[in-house]
Amino acid sequence: MRERLVVIGGDAAGMSAASQARRRRSPSHLDIVAFERGSYSSYAACGLPYFVGDDVSGVDALIARSPEQHQANGIDLRMRHDVTAIDVERRSVRVRDLDAITEHDEPFDQLVIATGARPRRPPLPGIGLAGVHGVHTIPDALDLRTDLATPSERPRAVVVGGGYVGLEMAEAFLARGCAVELVHRGAQPMATLDNDMGELVARSMRSLGITLHLGATVTGFGAGADGRVGTVQTDRGDIAADVVALGLGIEPNIEIARAAGVGIGQAGGIVTDERMATDVDGVWAAGDCVETRHRVSDRNVLIALGTHANKQGRIAGLNVTGGSAEFPGVVGTAITKVCAIEIARTGLSERECSALGVDHVAATIEGTTRAGYYPGADPITVKIVAERSTGRMLGTQIVGGAGAGKRIDAAAVAIWNEMSVDQFAQLDLAYAPPFAPVWDPLLIAARKAADLV
Amino acid sequence: MRERLVVIGGDAAGMSAASQARRRRSPSHLDIVAFERGSYSSYAACGLPYFVGDDVSGVDALIARSPEQHQANGIDLRMRHDVTAIDVERRSVRVRDLDAITEHDEPFDQLVIATGARPRRPPLPGIGLAGVHGVHTIPDALDLRTDLATPSERPRAVVVGGGYVGLEMAEAFLARGCAVELVHRGAQPMATLDNDMGELVARSMRSLGITLHLGATVTGFGAGADGRVGTVQTDRGDIAADVVALGLGIEPNIEIARAAGVGIGQAGGIVTDERMATDVDGVWAAGDCVETRHRVSDRNVLIALGTHANKQGRIAGLNVTGGSAEFPGVVGTAITKVCAIEIARTGLSERECSALGVDHVAATIEGTTRAGYYPGADPITVKIVAERSTGRMLGTQIVGGAGAGKRIDAAAVAIWNEMSVDQFAQLDLAYAPPFAPVWDPLLIAARKAADLV
Repeated sequence: MRERLVVIGGDAAGMSAASQARRRRSPSHLDIVAFERGSYSSYAACGLPYFVGDDVSGVDALIARSPEQHQANGIDLRMRHDVTAIDVERRSVRVRDLDAITEHDEPFDQLVIATGARPRRPPLPGIGLAGVHGVHTIPDALDLRTDLATPSERPRAVVVGGGYVGLEMAEAFLARGCAVELVHRGAQPMATLDNDMGELVARSMRSLGITLHLGATVTGFGAGADGRVGTVQTDRGDIAADVVALGLGIEPNIEIARAAGVGIGQAGGIVTDERMATDVDGVWAAGDCVETRHRVSDRNVLIALGTHANKQGRIAGLNVTGGSAEFPGVVGTAITKVCAIEIARTGLSERECSALGVDHVAATIEGTTRAGYYPGADPITVKIVAERSTGRMLGTQIVGGAGAGKRIDAAAVAIWNEMSVDQFAQLDLAYAPPFAPVWDPLLIAARKAADLV
Repeated sequence: MRERLVVIGGDAAGMSAASQARRRRSPSHLDIVAFERGSYSSYAACGLPYFVGDDVSGVDALIARSPEQHQANGIDLRMRHDVTAIDVERRSVRVRDLDAITEHDEPFDQLVIATGARPRRPPLPGIGLAGVHGVHTIPDALDLRTDLATPSERPRAVVVGGGYVGLEMAEAFLARGCAVELVHRGAQPMATLDNDMGELVARSMRSLGITLHLGATVTGFGAGADGRVGTVQTDRGDIAADVVALGLGIEPNIEIARAAGVGIGQAGGIVTDERMATDVDGVWAAGDCVETRHRVSDRNVLIALGTHANKQGRIAGLNVTGGSAEFPGVVGTAITKVCAIEIARTGLSERECSALGVDHVAATIEGTTRAGYYPGADPITVKIVAERSTGRMLGTQIVGGAGAGKRIDAAAVAIWNEMSVDQFAQLDLAYAPPFAPVWDPLLIAARKAADLV
């Protein structure tokens, strides 16, 4: 009997699921229909700031697979088709063709919800003005590039939000020759770091010429003489702006899932089990719209990241075709950079430990990325958080020069395996002068943390 | 009662032990006497090729702590003092002052043997000719620099041996403008990699302009008209040479330990327990002269590496002062580079698995160090070896561009924790376009290996 798989969402999670399912079932056994309301499939959202900043040559480079490639692969991917409702009783979805402006019901045997997330856009006065941009879709990036192409002596770019997207857009605007100011509500940028590490980021950003407005809340946007955005209004005063990028975080697209009765969790995302199955039989979910178990806190969290979306999509695709794969959760690893400054974190920060009531110690050390005598040895600061009672390594934060950031992986693997900081300090990490001092900074930080527990 | 600790060897392991002991015991409780037969203490032997290659500005940069600094720290470090014998019954060592040409007996309560290793120098005809250099001590490097400073249009440099030191010296000679040839007995350079990965290294080296003589054995060295080395003679013919660097591996300095009845193991080094205690009461050993347990093979191995020497010395220093620290062994992690090509390995290679009779699978993948569309995305090849019956990750090898090498740490931590390749493929490794593709090459290799078990 020929089955029908419907996928909602033509990006990382959805198309990973569809591709994996197709790899395991031929078109004669399984129909795969995917709906994407946008005009681009399988694009690298995380690459958008680099496209704006001219590091990436063209929009095509960001597209892993075009709709045509998916179609040639036996996936009936329909672009600019918006799924507006799921009927779990009748086993169908309601689909609107955004171009033909028609609607129809599409039946499914199994359904993968991969609706992703959208950038937060608080209902502030003037947020709809031309020149105020999210940074989430390819059209967002194209619009930003159009604005930056408009002749101006030195465009004044304002970034709202000091998280990953905010920092990356600050870099992109710098690269494009803008005067860059960044407004952030918190005391330091990068709320996923502790404030002491965030302060290092702030210092680096200032040294790059970025003006930071910390502890400031955006209250609205004012129009300039041309009707476009002219100011970003904050509780600390107005900031002149020719172009604005919003990096206020994202929220999951769960409305149609919730309306269909699919379970939504405390963190605000769709709840699945490790197989990516929702609480509705035959309905699966993956990617930015789902909650994920954090292996350290054992809480569900929302982390929108392409690498998780790809893994979860793959697992959904395996399981809808009779497999038994499981997504084991995350440890909250993340990395970014602002120009030459690399920033990474994994596990829990002190702030998160405190919120969870975990008694912890923290050790911070300064070192170099390479042997001190080797050319290009850059400063690196490593902070390690450990459970006070057991010495278990709970989290690591890194800020430093080239080669600093990807060191976080060693910490992520250790935290995944519930190593203690004492055990970590003994690890056989790679050493040679061009790559590390004889004691890797991570080992020194772990040793210092071990002395505190 | 005041005790006396004697340390043989003033380099990484010995001085780590002495410093750690001093940190825990004041001079009024513990005398610490250390003997070093050379003229330099605590120097970075692994930095020597970079000093020859002019990456490191001066010899002082390679010295972590001078004899004066150790002495100021309360360690009675006596330079150019050679310990010629250990008397474990009378609890003393026989010491020759190489400058005064006197000898005396120095009593000890506890003894740390940190005699290190020496470069292998097979008794080949002509090996004593001027211009034929080991690369192990600061005088070696100074001699090499002197030879390279001699005016010559384009010195012909020959490297004997294609291991870590050989590759690093090839790079150094290139940096100094030499015509570089490398002779290596094996089919491919880097015997700690499998041949398929070694072939990638060979290809990179050739593209840098290095002439490789693989599968060739050096039979001697011929003198030129000036009486210095003029040719490197091999079973495949002679190679003209103005300067020669030997990278033929090292052998541990165990003679005085063996003569004193201290146990020597199968691998040829001093045997210690995890506390770095030898089989003679009150006699400890650390660094390049000791055997270390390989956690994957569960065999003792000899791995001369500053990072192990430092860790082991520290542990010996803790234990001689009443501590109970343990060195948990190694997983064989190592890293180097030839110009822009990074090379790293950890765990067991296929060759090692075969020698141990371990039934294994291996997967090799090609990827990029960053997202393919991000500037500076370089090729990276990752090979993962896993146990066939269990899927346990046994080893990883990496050859690639900037950012490739230090990725080995994630694999080292996973192997340390006995993860399976299936588990590894699910790890939460750091992802952002400037740092990795959405599937890190390590994850892709692990997934491919998991499909084979």
